[in-house]
Amino acid sequence: MKQYRVAILGATGAVGQEFLRLFARRQFPVSAVRLLASERSSGKLLKFKSHNVPVQAVSADAFDAVDIAFFSAGSEAARQWAPIALQKGAVVIDNSSAFRMDEGVPLVVPEINWHVVRPSHRLFPVGNCTAIILMMAVAPLRKFGRIARIVASSYQSVSGAGARAMQELERQTRELADSKPLTPQVFPFPIAGNLFSHNTPINEFGYNQEEWKVIQETRKTLESPGLAIEITCVRVPVLRAHSLSINVQFDGPAPAVGAMREAYEAFPGIKLVDDRQNNTFPMPIQAAGEEDVLVGRIRQDATNPNCVSVFACGDQLLKGAALNALQIAEKLAAQELIAEPLASQ
Amino acid sequence: MKQYRVAILGATGAVGQEFLRLFARRQFPVSAVRLLASERSSGKLLKFKSHNVPVQAVSADAFDAVDIAFFSAGSEAARQWAPIALQKGAVVIDNSSAFRMDEGVPLVVPEINWHVVRPSHRLFPVGNCTAIILMMAVAPLRKFGRIARIVASSYQSVSGAGARAMQELERQTRELADSKPLTPQVFPFPIAGNLFSHNTPINEFGYNQEEWKVIQETRKTLESPGLAIEITCVRVPVLRAHSLSINVQFDGPAPAVGAMREAYEAFPGIKLVDDRQNNTFPMPIQAAGEEDVLVGRIRQDATNPNCVSVFACGDQLLKGAALNALQIAEKLAAQELIAEPLASQ
Repeated sequence: MKQYRVAILGATGAVGQEFLRLFARRQFPVSAVRLLASERSSGKLLKFKSHNVPVQAVSADAFDAVDIAFFSAGSEAARQWAPIALQKGAVVIDNSSAFRMDEGVPLVVPEINWHVVRPSHRLFPVGNCTAIILMMAVAPLRKFGRIARIVASSYQSVSGAGARAMQELERQTRELADSKPLTPQVFPFPIAGNLFSHNTPINEFGYNQEEWKVIQETRKTLESPGLAIEITCVRVPVLRAHSLSINVQFDGPAPAVGAMREAYEAFPGIKLVDDRQNNTFPMPIQAAGEEDVLVGRIRQDATNPNCVSVFACGDQLLKGAALNALQIAEKLAAQELIAEPLASQ
Repeated sequence: MKQYRVAILGATGAVGQEFLRLFARRQFPVSAVRLLASERSSGKLLKFKSHNVPVQAVSADAFDAVDIAFFSAGSEAARQWAPIALQKGAVVIDNSSAFRMDEGVPLVVPEINWHVVRPSHRLFPVGNCTAIILMMAVAPLRKFGRIARIVASSYQSVSGAGARAMQELERQTRELADSKPLTPQVFPFPIAGNLFSHNTPINEFGYNQEEWKVIQETRKTLESPGLAIEITCVRVPVLRAHSLSINVQFDGPAPAVGAMREAYEAFPGIKLVDDRQNNTFPMPIQAAGEEDVLVGRIRQDATNPNCVSVFACGDQLLKGAALNALQIAEKLAAQELIAEPLASQ
């Protein structure tokens, strides 16, 4: 079996660390791993399988002889280093929003639109975490007819804002337990015991950046440029799994609940959690650490015969980021689409 | 000024205690207060203004010479004691769901439908907390045209499940901070660091009891029997304020954002919190302890010219329960609709 030399840019971040766990858990054939981060983290040791691997400062040379570069270091770093890594022959799989909407660049959720991938593609942005979880919950329903409109509200965990945001929720949870004042550093408002509209700038239409990403990216990945998506993104005091309350409107009559359940059960990457009797539906504590997106609370909308409602939870760091990225690498590997990098001997 | 002899059934509960604070804060003319609860709480002392008032076990005699009985002790207690209190001449204002949908019984949010109250009315159920906050956010928009449909998702605090649920969140917050296993007692699932579909039984249509209450009660109070309301009710780890993400569809074109802002600003009981520049919108920590319902994140829905989206937060224990009840009493008092009880000398 072919082995791959991989690099992780942003190795010390919340998503970066998930890559190391996933390589081991999913037995991705890694022959060498290069952990890259900013100068500040250089020298730090991270565990990979049973080894301690030192983090090195990112540089052009760091991408020599790399087959696959996983990026999770934000848009600015992606814009700086992706061209270099690509030029050196690596496939780049980037979790930032830098290239997602670029024309000719595929925005892939492997279960949904792998067919758009061409052998010439070398740069694979990974979509916004909330968009991916929304798409996973919506895509299995497309077999029942054209989807006309989606109205969704999110319950987003703090991990989407990175490892420091996760530490902030943990610190504030203790402050709350101790009846001390909460100290916001990463977020503009206290998050423990609170929730707030996603703290990204609001555009002229009244949508924040997160909502706008979800709308644009979902349209791109689902190949439905005109799909009407109304979403309100809200940050909640949950550590790592995002939830979504979703109302889907079809052009024609909505499918029966039984048929929807079957469609979800048959769809790769989805786990149906829809037990009305025991009032058991998707919850973040179940979704955390879980590769599948949980879907449930499936019902026909009593107010509109063309609509259904569902509730979904997915691990933001896994399917919302590192797992989706690794799935792209796995698919490329399976189809032998990862060429030898130019700089390798 | 006329003074009133009041009783609080469920005085030791989360809502019960809010009544005592509100009487003082809103200077409701109380000449005597009788604190009623189950046998178990009898003898307990509760603070009212600067006095310690003993709690007594509820009995028929306890409603003698009571002008206004505020109930917050659940549906079973309401069904048992309301007929007795009414018979003794008290006005009964009940926070349970026991009588809300009874024909001939008004379901009043004073700012919205006080006009339905007749001098003969003596029993006033207070609506479901989520329904009240939803209605407060929707009612000011009715001046812009007939509302055809509402799609909402809730972010409900634990206070709706009572004082023990609030203690459970506080206990689990400490357990979470200490990395200990979370111990659910009141809720079926951990609530700290988690969220879940409202834990009430699911009906044949796939809606839980909470959602069904919101749908039916909103239709009744807004006097729109056919209003289409799709809602998903979710419990979140927040102590006492409920939030709602709401999409409102009009029969015709939606109003401009500026006009909606003005309508909210002019509506009693609403506080507009809609600062796009500083990304400041309604949050539970702001709404907690606040009498007004906060409304913001107001935008025209880019997917449908007839729709708008808004976000609302309201204190579940205040506008969602005790405050709405006291406002009913205040209005009745102002209109001299509180007769001398039969049992008084």
